[in-house]
Amino acid sequence: MEPRQASIAVIGCGVIGESWSALFLAHGYDVHAWDPNPEVRARFAQQIERPLAQLASLDPNPRPKGRLRVAGSLIEAVATAGLVQENAPERIPVKRALYVEIEAAAPKNSIIASSTSALTWSELSPALLQPARLITAHPFNPPHLIPLVELFGVDNDVLARAEAIYRDLDRKTVRLKKEAVGHIANRLASALWREAVHLVAEGIADVSDIDAALVNGPGLRWSVIGAHMVYHLAGGEGGIRHYLEHLGPSQVRRWETLGSPQLTAEVREKLIAGIASEARGRSVSELESARDTQLIRAIQARREGR
Amino acid sequence: MEPRQASIAVIGCGVIGESWSALFLAHGYDVHAWDPNPEVRARFAQQIERPLAQLASLDPNPRPKGRLRVAGSLIEAVATAGLVQENAPERIPVKRALYVEIEAAAPKNSIIASSTSALTWSELSPALLQPARLITAHPFNPPHLIPLVELFGVDNDVLARAEAIYRDLDRKTVRLKKEAVGHIANRLASALWREAVHLVAEGIADVSDIDAALVNGPGLRWSVIGAHMVYHLAGGEGGIRHYLEHLGPSQVRRWETLGSPQLTAEVREKLIAGIASEARGRSVSELESARDTQLIRAIQARREGR
Repeated sequence: MEPRQASIAVIGCGVIGESWSALFLAHGYDVHAWDPNPEVRARFAQQIERPLAQLASLDPNPRPKGRLRVAGSLIEAVATAGLVQENAPERIPVKRALYVEIEAAAPKNSIIASSTSALTWSELSPALLQPARLITAHPFNPPHLIPLVELFGVDNDVLARAEAIYRDLDRKTVRLKKEAVGHIANRLASALWREAVHLVAEGIADVSDIDAALVNGPGLRWSVIGAHMVYHLAGGEGGIRHYLEHLGPSQVRRWETLGSPQLTAEVREKLIAGIASEARGRSVSELESARDTQLIRAIQARREGR
Repeated sequence: MEPRQASIAVIGCGVIGESWSALFLAHGYDVHAWDPNPEVRARFAQQIERPLAQLASLDPNPRPKGRLRVAGSLIEAVATAGLVQENAPERIPVKRALYVEIEAAAPKNSIIASSTSALTWSELSPALLQPARLITAHPFNPPHLIPLVELFGVDNDVLARAEAIYRDLDRKTVRLKKEAVGHIANRLASALWREAVHLVAEGIADVSDIDAALVNGPGLRWSVIGAHMVYHLAGGEGGIRHYLEHLGPSQVRRWETLGSPQLTAEVREKLIAGIASEARGRSVSELESARDTQLIRAIQARREGR
């Protein structure tokens, strides 16, 4: 598929499907969207106005937008698709059943990409006659703003064609060499959160202080430099080799002191109370808007630096 | 100590001492710096020019700068100090010996703040006649750019006075309720890096792809929203309570699949080769400059949003 020469099918129109659709449309791709729930379909065009407006605010010279069609059936949605982006619930039977229908109705050469965060290619692919058409293409929430798309598949040509499309959307793609539950980003996030929960459970710091430490410390730094590269710089002119030789053993000892919390009722109540204090009366929707405003500003700053 | 009414002593003039000094000076504080190594003292004024220039680029309306004096002795450096910021090597006997001298020579009411990243207040305080004067005040590298300062102490008045100074420097302070090795930020960073090393060790992804995933995914998001708050938003309108009830068990299962790598020779070589590939020939110093340029841009974007 050459970028923007065929339509893109968005299957599953929840928050991830909305975000993907806005991104495809903003970059000039026609989107044919479908969700099994007629109410979701009915409100979909309106739902994507907010992410579309956010993307417009990021782009001083927008391309001509693609056209959105909310399809009446799955078959109709995928009929002319070069890429099918599937965002169904995270249940293997649901996704497998969809793939059987998609494979029968979509153009033979089209790519089937699953947004799955928690399932793997091996769990999803057996439903297909041509499993190599399937890739996992995991975006990071909110996908229209966060650049990352994590890819896994078994056919280099399929992966390369998918990468061309995602890069055309200004996404940063990374390929996994072996599949893993949670891919890369959610495994890192899960590892960090485990320790963040441990700090709360042990009474070392409050939820809001842990979040403030992250946002004003390692989070800010990881928005410009990766975790491995941090240790390369920490080694001075000797770099990562020097670091590993001299401070590697102390890191391994540190790892051994990290927590293994359980989400007991007591810990859950501490987390809930801590978030209530951090939220200071703001609703989830208000907090999301604040996050998006700040993300847009951070992304603008990156683009100015290119 | 009222902000900017007394001098600040910077003890230990390595990269952390340089960075602190530039920050204090840029905010109008007089700095009396001392290092046991005369060569370090001799080049110190020149060494802080780079961080001072970076801070100037961040501040369109700079305050009058403080005056730097490189002291010939520890006693001279701390004689008029309201705050003593200690950045000695991370060895307990070295720091304890310094505190004995500092306590004897500094004004009675002054605060002794250790930049220690790996030691705790309990390990450091026994050297002092008045241990409550000591706090740990851990900055995050590079301290003149990253806002976080993590505090632990046992005297609320001392902590409050220290907070007033750090906040006057535009720092974001968080207090630990109990001391912990690695405070908050380095524990989170260590937990994340453990999984990042695991992904390399298991051959799931390359060093540069893991770093790219972090910088373009969770790192970017954690620069605007904390890890706990992320799960509050992931719960939708039901927030963290809903998330914990419905997806908490799946997080605990995910935690159980996270890696416990060892830094074997083979893993170390993989990390070193991966960094070499990611660095693409750039020296540590060039990589640091690139990091700082991007950090300055990210911090500017935050300030514009205030």
